[in-house]
Amino acid sequence: MNYMHRIDSNMPPLQHSSLAALGEFGLISRITSAVSPGEGVITGIGDDAAVTSLSPGMQLLVSTDMLVEDVHFDLGWHDPSRLGRKSLAVNISDIAAMGGIPRWVLLSLALPSDLPLDFIDRFMRGFLGMAAEHRVALIGGDTCSSRSGLSISVTVMGEQAPELILRRSGALPDDDIWVTGTLGDAALGLKVVQNGGTGDDYPVSRLLDPSPRVSAALALAEAGVVTAMIDVSDGILADFGHIAEQSHVGGCIYRDDLPLSAGFRSHTADLSEIPYQLALSGGEDYELCFTAHRSNRKKIVDCMKKSGIAVTRVGIVINSPGVAVLCPDGTRYEVNSDGFNHFT
Amino acid sequence: MNYMHRIDSNMPPLQHSSLAALGEFGLISRITSAVSPGEGVITGIGDDAAVTSLSPGMQLLVSTDMLVEDVHFDLGWHDPSRLGRKSLAVNISDIAAMGGIPRWVLLSLALPSDLPLDFIDRFMRGFLGMAAEHRVALIGGDTCSSRSGLSISVTVMGEQAPELILRRSGALPDDDIWVTGTLGDAALGLKVVQNGGTGDDYPVSRLLDPSPRVSAALALAEAGVVTAMIDVSDGILADFGHIAEQSHVGGCIYRDDLPLSAGFRSHTADLSEIPYQLALSGGEDYELCFTAHRSNRKKIVDCMKKSGIAVTRVGIVINSPGVAVLCPDGTRYEVNSDGFNHFT
Repeated sequence: MNYMHRIDSNMPPLQHSSLAALGEFGLISRITSAVSPGEGVITGIGDDAAVTSLSPGMQLLVSTDMLVEDVHFDLGWHDPSRLGRKSLAVNISDIAAMGGIPRWVLLSLALPSDLPLDFIDRFMRGFLGMAAEHRVALIGGDTCSSRSGLSISVTVMGEQAPELILRRSGALPDDDIWVTGTLGDAALGLKVVQNGGTGDDYPVSRLLDPSPRVSAALALAEAGVVTAMIDVSDGILADFGHIAEQSHVGGCIYRDDLPLSAGFRSHTADLSEIPYQLALSGGEDYELCFTAHRSNRKKIVDCMKKSGIAVTRVGIVINSPGVAVLCPDGTRYEVNSDGFNHFT
Repeated sequence: MNYMHRIDSNMPPLQHSSLAALGEFGLISRITSAVSPGEGVITGIGDDAAVTSLSPGMQLLVSTDMLVEDVHFDLGWHDPSRLGRKSLAVNISDIAAMGGIPRWVLLSLALPSDLPLDFIDRFMRGFLGMAAEHRVALIGGDTCSSRSGLSISVTVMGEQAPELILRRSGALPDDDIWVTGTLGDAALGLKVVQNGGTGDDYPVSRLLDPSPRVSAALALAEAGVVTAMIDVSDGILADFGHIAEQSHVGGCIYRDDLPLSAGFRSHTADLSEIPYQLALSGGEDYELCFTAHRSNRKKIVDCMKKSGIAVTRVGIVINSPGVAVLCPDGTRYEVNSDGFNHFT
């Protein structure tokens, strides 16, 4: 891709090996040199604030995420390039979950002063590569030193026409519950790397390098078939739970309809039973979970076929609160965790 | 103020004393309960992304800052309420420096899990109090745990008509260099607290609780008299240096014209000479430094009188690169530091 070439050719060879030798302003100009102009960007990096212009009739969508070393990632198994990609991907996923078009991003880094410059270069290549894939322009940020680990804070802005924006609050009783892709891979990947597995494994690659479902989300928004949507970052049970709560409904999820990848199945084939709890409560799959009226089933399948993303009906919205997981015989499946929760 | 009352009455008495007992979602709803709706906010906290609507004809301004414990602040002398105020103030200052109207804010917190909930409540009261003073609405953010210290990441969004936005790049030779308020207070305040001084002192209050110059900046933008503007966060020498660099000019700053507060003068009265380097290179005053044609002197003075903010002419823009500080006898004053720079 041209853009990746641009990143490589515009980032000059390292003349300093350390952050201390390059300095704060040196680092900023190094990063800036690799940034290409973006749509709607009036003033990018280099002033007190960035200036952008929304497309006519559009509303602004904005989301932010913080990634903290040894809480969200472990440099023992997360290589800098994929960490850069993921830092942006998880934020783009939030814009996608609203049916929005991602446009601009701010990146803040609190960097341990002994971090090798090569690490930052590889991180930025990953970050800007992900940005290029989704035509998102880096327009600002902040860099500072950290006395402890690496902290990354990313804010993504997007836009969408008011009538196409999808929220968590529109699900209706009897709507189908859908999910894109497969579930549980990232949670399984986490177990694999914690046990010394490598990054070439499919579940591990899902954990370290997630793909935000932007084109699928946009296709759904434009098709006008979705009543509520969220991205699956904390497990479908917790995340559909947010839809249920904000829509004042509940839901049944059919355990055996949960989409599991071939990688997931082969990794877990020797277990006495399928670890459904990873697919229900494991975080970081960054798939889309959405609800839609049953009359739209064909439209949804066709629309996702065009986007090249698998889609599966996994349950139904009901009129009473709470989310139940049901086994094929109709009995309730008990889950021992309902998603990741900081501090507890 | 009504809003402060709202913050106090809407934040229920603490039923948990620890973050671990309250949990992530408990913390988020606790914060959300204290947030009032804001202008242009279509969807605030609680969905994958916030949705806002810019006023017709306006462009978006956005800026972000990260504040890291033991790098940007020391909890030994920064009380939580003023830390909350400052976290927002330094970001609002960036929007002001563009001549913008601050509107919305995102707040991310990486919190040590042993941080008392009372600390967070006091931090949020300070943060939301500053937000109320500037009619800025909290519309989202992120909370997570931290294995090391407290990290705060704030993104402020504002808006302004394209023709009123002020950049660093418009200064012209022979323009006057102006600065609001007084300089060096925050840097002196840092020395005071480092030597065990208290927060009631004027220089210390400037350090711990800076006031972004929003109304002054808006008055200047609307008067149409400013050619370039920046906020003084790293010392006027470094910050005017950014204007000079981006405007392809240079400047002379008259040392003895630098505005010094009565508190600064009384604190430094027993020194053998006035520590001008604090006023030139000390960070965190968050005053405005701007340039304007000499024909606009009276307009600027009148305009600032209405805003109730002092303004002082401190130098002149010149046609050759570099920024010199001149003594009254015309000799060059040598400064031993040119502003704060992370990593070095």
